[in-house]
Amino acid sequence: MPNDSDWMAAAAHLGLRGRPLSSPNPSVGAVIIRNNIVVGRGWTQPGGRPHGEAMALYQAGDDARGATLYTTLEPCAHPSQRGPTCSHLIAEAGIARVVFACLDPDARTAGNGVEILRSAGVIVDQISHAVAATGLAGYLTKQRLGRPHVTLKLALSLDGFIAMPSGESQWITGEIARAHVHSRRAMADAILVGGGTWRSDRPRLDVRLPGLESRSPKRVVLTRGVPIDGVTIINTPAQIADLADVQYLYVEGGSQTAASFLREDLVDRIELYRAPIILGEGMAALGDIGLSALGDAHNQWALEQRLQLGSDTFEAYGRQR
Amino acid sequence: MPNDSDWMAAAAHLGLRGRPLSSPNPSVGAVIIRNNIVVGRGWTQPGGRPHGEAMALYQAGDDARGATLYTTLEPCAHPSQRGPTCSHLIAEAGIARVVFACLDPDARTAGNGVEILRSAGVIVDQISHAVAATGLAGYLTKQRLGRPHVTLKLALSLDGFIAMPSGESQWITGEIARAHVHSRRAMADAILVGGGTWRSDRPRLDVRLPGLESRSPKRVVLTRGVPIDGVTIINTPAQIADLADVQYLYVEGGSQTAASFLREDLVDRIELYRAPIILGEGMAALGDIGLSALGDAHNQWALEQRLQLGSDTFEAYGRQR
Repeated sequence: MPNDSDWMAAAAHLGLRGRPLSSPNPSVGAVIIRNNIVVGRGWTQPGGRPHGEAMALYQAGDDARGATLYTTLEPCAHPSQRGPTCSHLIAEAGIARVVFACLDPDARTAGNGVEILRSAGVIVDQISHAVAATGLAGYLTKQRLGRPHVTLKLALSLDGFIAMPSGESQWITGEIARAHVHSRRAMADAILVGGGTWRSDRPRLDVRLPGLESRSPKRVVLTRGVPIDGVTIINTPAQIADLADVQYLYVEGGSQTAASFLREDLVDRIELYRAPIILGEGMAALGDIGLSALGDAHNQWALEQRLQLGSDTFEAYGRQR
Repeated sequence: MPNDSDWMAAAAHLGLRGRPLSSPNPSVGAVIIRNNIVVGRGWTQPGGRPHGEAMALYQAGDDARGATLYTTLEPCAHPSQRGPTCSHLIAEAGIARVVFACLDPDARTAGNGVEILRSAGVIVDQISHAVAATGLAGYLTKQRLGRPHVTLKLALSLDGFIAMPSGESQWITGEIARAHVHSRRAMADAILVGGGTWRSDRPRLDVRLPGLESRSPKRVVLTRGVPIDGVTIINTPAQIADLADVQYLYVEGGSQTAASFLREDLVDRIELYRAPIILGEGMAALGDIGLSALGDAHNQWALEQRLQLGSDTFEAYGRQR
């Protein structure tokens, strides 16, 4: 029999579907369970409405009465011109129990969702869930740290190089890994590269996957140089805080740019593509990240995901804060 | 119901137990199966005798009659003063079918084992099996390439460094990974380091695991320098071919030594310990390995094993020849 954690996993994976189109709202995943049967599923729709809980309630209809609703985020409690709050909807639908993963840090909800539900006699429990937190990372990072969630992408040989000494870098990884990068781009609101990479490679930075071309994120270049057509310019990594409508930022390099984000502790997730090749010497992935002692390098990163992509390995490491 | 491949896996894992004490003989693993029940198990004993098949037959006794014997190596066919051949023993024991993984490249057996068995009415089948080949790698490499099987050990940060720019390298990996290195040393006949590493670090290169202290392999230093007490000296990587009684050589560095072995294509297996840390800059693991184009780096190495050792990851890559 599935337990709370299993049902939350189902909700969390549904939540991932809404990223990043739910912007500016977080993509919340929800499932409604009655007698161990799924009677409703939902995730936040493009543009941010309806919310995931509302979608699941709509699907469940009368089956919501007496059922348990699992949601990745505390149901919203602040009235909006775009619709009633999820906390009220849930109470009115007769849901008996709500299990949520993350408290909403938005001051307008922050605990009020739980309050409204409990006042209406709904049992409310919180359980932590890694995937639920990942699915809300952009929203939570923006709320807590006042900046987008930053993913740094690296594609390396086994011995850590991104290119031959000559600069030759096509290709370190194989076709499947490169397609995976495009699917990751489609999950971001913006892609960033450094000015050097922009000028030397003229990267298209778009999503070249059939059917997902429209998901190409906005392009941002970190440079002290002149404006570039069709591209947002920032002069320092810290200026990512000012990027409008960006909850998920995907940093693709080059090495100086990557190092500067790490130096300022602005990387939340490292996505590492590793090809089973040895170069011996070549161009390093990073540069000075301001580390003074080896001991300080430990306990900063934890493996969150690993996938085999053909002969390449994908690993995601999360910053431990 | 287990199939041929499953039983061969059981034999192959038993074979690993004999390494490297079976030297100068290969460590062969064997199981005898009758009516889907294991009636005999064996692996080559220290010093090389009895062979794995003989051990399994001894254990099976009369149950060997009509049974199937799985062995990682073709049963031996050349008479020895130390005992009868396994091919004859198997036939006399009434084994109905033999399944083996690797043909014995020793000219005195090479196919003769199969011949003797078939002449005696035993059904003989060959199936390939990766672990069986790994367990015999030292013997097969010595027979085929005239030199020991070489494993190169590397301990790296995620971005490929073996030390800080200052040289500080204690520690990249954690305690579990370091203990694993000692267990790997215990599987080798000799450990090799370069002269620079020897002079600067004075590494003990021994096995510091309770109960396995006696398994510390002989020590070899690659150097053009003067003789060193208690240590075998070679001047070039190719001279590993002359090392007496060494089927398994474990190369621990430093980076120039590691690169020189790769440059001469003398590495059969890379064992990579990866810590979830980012250094940004530091000392590279290798150096010039003679690679001229990125394309040439591909299809040389394949992932054979992956283990999680605390927060570190162990990966073994085999050279594809």
